[in-house]
Amino acid sequence: MKSKVSNRGIEMPASPIRRLAGAAHAAEQRGITVYRLNIGQPDIPSPPQAFDALRHIDRKMLEYTPSQGLESLRIKMAEYYHRCGLEIHPDEIIITTGGSEAVLFAFMACLDPGDEIIVPQPAYANYMAFAISAGARIIPVNSTIETGFRLPPVEEFERLITPRTKGILICNPNNPTGYIYTRDELEQIADIASRHGLFLFSDEVYREFCYADQPMVSVMSIESVHKNAVLIDSVSKRYNECGIRIGALVSRDPDVRANVMKFCQARLCPPLIGQLVAEASIDATPEYQQEVFEEYRRRRDFLIERLNRIPGCYSPTPMGAFYTVASLPVDDADEFCRWCLDEFSHDGKTIFMAPASGFYSDTSLGRNQVRIAYVHDLDYLAKALDTLQAALQAYAKIKK
Amino acid sequence: MKSKVSNRGIEMPASPIRRLAGAAHAAEQRGITVYRLNIGQPDIPSPPQAFDALRHIDRKMLEYTPSQGLESLRIKMAEYYHRCGLEIHPDEIIITTGGSEAVLFAFMACLDPGDEIIVPQPAYANYMAFAISAGARIIPVNSTIETGFRLPPVEEFERLITPRTKGILICNPNNPTGYIYTRDELEQIADIASRHGLFLFSDEVYREFCYADQPMVSVMSIESVHKNAVLIDSVSKRYNECGIRIGALVSRDPDVRANVMKFCQARLCPPLIGQLVAEASIDATPEYQQEVFEEYRRRRDFLIERLNRIPGCYSPTPMGAFYTVASLPVDDADEFCRWCLDEFSHDGKTIFMAPASGFYSDTSLGRNQVRIAYVHDLDYLAKALDTLQAALQAYAKIKK
Repeated sequence: MKSKVSNRGIEMPASPIRRLAGAAHAAEQRGITVYRLNIGQPDIPSPPQAFDALRHIDRKMLEYTPSQGLESLRIKMAEYYHRCGLEIHPDEIIITTGGSEAVLFAFMACLDPGDEIIVPQPAYANYMAFAISAGARIIPVNSTIETGFRLPPVEEFERLITPRTKGILICNPNNPTGYIYTRDELEQIADIASRHGLFLFSDEVYREFCYADQPMVSVMSIESVHKNAVLIDSVSKRYNECGIRIGALVSRDPDVRANVMKFCQARLCPPLIGQLVAEASIDATPEYQQEVFEEYRRRRDFLIERLNRIPGCYSPTPMGAFYTVASLPVDDADEFCRWCLDEFSHDGKTIFMAPASGFYSDTSLGRNQVRIAYVHDLDYLAKALDTLQAALQAYAKIKK
Repeated sequence: MKSKVSNRGIEMPASPIRRLAGAAHAAEQRGITVYRLNIGQPDIPSPPQAFDALRHIDRKMLEYTPSQGLESLRIKMAEYYHRCGLEIHPDEIIITTGGSEAVLFAFMACLDPGDEIIVPQPAYANYMAFAISAGARIIPVNSTIETGFRLPPVEEFERLITPRTKGILICNPNNPTGYIYTRDELEQIADIASRHGLFLFSDEVYREFCYADQPMVSVMSIESVHKNAVLIDSVSKRYNECGIRIGALVSRDPDVRANVMKFCQARLCPPLIGQLVAEASIDATPEYQQEVFEEYRRRRDFLIERLNRIPGCYSPTPMGAFYTVASLPVDDADEFCRWCLDEFSHDGKTIFMAPASGFYSDTSLGRNQVRIAYVHDLDYLAKALDTLQAALQAYAKIKK
């Protein structure tokens, strides 16, 4: 019997979050309240402009759009980039089905099977999945919690370059660490990319969420990678509309765009209605954006202050995005997170965190680390952290 | 300089339609009316239920859905399949971003790089693109206009099977030929798939559009491929909402579904709003569906009757979908189609047809054939066919 699934599929890692999702569901079935610190789905409303676009939709047909995306949306996005200080022509923007598709198509269009990309880790787990889809290999360069997940020295990147190296991928601000690259760091990476003729993929979907004093620097503003830079973007986090699946791939290299467009044409078009919503959302008021920003900063400050007061816990202060990677006083965070869902409850409550092991290729790294998303309000976070503290105490006892 | 695009991208064929799209646009810029017989974008309104779902949207957040798709939509789809005589459990349905993603994920999850799938041709050009994305090879088995694009004898399939053969892909009703497989033909293919342990992928997105007396038989109703069958589906054509990008992959094999789900999880979820619209659209009235059906049948009858009256033109009567492949009295349809857009006009009008070469792997086949879509009303079709006739007369003169 040959009708077996592919090895590529079998090799694709299930992230630790997914492995635990069933356990969280089972805990809820047992009547336990599960505080979900694991996810990137914010509780913040989408802007009113998004819903107005839906309620006042004025067309008879929900037809295909151009494969590159609606021109009106691309013009709006170019205006948005202009406000961010980036000069990007609407023709340099390709609308994708979420930032996810932008990553997949960037890999498909730029990498051949067997090619390698260097990725600072911990890193967003799905990069690995898209690399497997494209037959490419992710080569990790590890950052550590001790240095606040700062970029490793440039020499470490250079040491990893082989004849198969085709690109470097960064996520800035970083999911899962919240780290934001300095202009100096970015220029160093760009310099390597430029000297070795590598693509520099930069996932900047958390661009708006920078709480540090330093500005967020986009790869599109670095002169040395004018053509090599490939920007991955999404409206999901910016306007709290993760479900509409609208992202973008931006490149100043016509060859890259022409190649990406072949994959775009095969899938016909990105979602029409999502594009209409995204276009309207770019008109969200500065007040909406400021309020969202302040809310996240409040949550971050609260989370980090409280987390570091729990004995044995440590988290650097994330500079951006809405996650942090924290170390816990446990040997094996995978086991601890599962124990919290399978065996623990305190006053009928428990917590669901993402073990950090899924964010490293080398699974011996980050063994005592978890990713915590601060996408819930302060009251929720307070209760979740109380529950975490109780869980750690109970776990320490059974581990003695 | 290594930052070059991938060969996979370079190898991906641009369909003849895309190659000509620029020429059509240029003709329009010169003030010429271009009758577009090339596309699969119908002019028929989406059902009112689709727009009601948008106008009455009642939520604060446009959040992620489950990666498998909304359960409520999957239940509705299972009910729809039940009405089609197919017993499919909602858990056997995976919602995808259009039928396109269903094809891509079917290939990614079932085929390893280097694997082969046998595909009757002429075939939908994007199958080739998705096969290239998955690193798989399409092995054509050719059907001919002389037999009305009937399925080639089963021996021809069997002759093509190698140790790398992993599946057979059919499109039923067929794009581009409109052919509908008889139950006998389907059972023969299913028998081969079953005996050789191959996947049988069946793209049935045109299921509703069967004008022949014989019933459309779904691969999901063939017992011998109960587990091997993978159904590709989409609401795009059924409800005239191509732009919402909602399709489905259906399999009774839990291993296939588990593997497909890894690719689904990596891209997070299919579009939320499209799912809401699709769910509402399944409630479209029988009158709406009947009216659409009658309209297409009228167009088919008109087109085929008129087309076969043009000297030298021949088209079998398509049994379903809304395309036909016709032969023209020209040596090279690629050249003729381009000439129509670049050099010809009659009373300020010309036509845009899809050369059939893009639907064959062997580009020496179908040289004098074009695909014509009947997605416009009778008046439009009449004018387009008058223009085609004038073009053929003028072309014959310059070719003398």
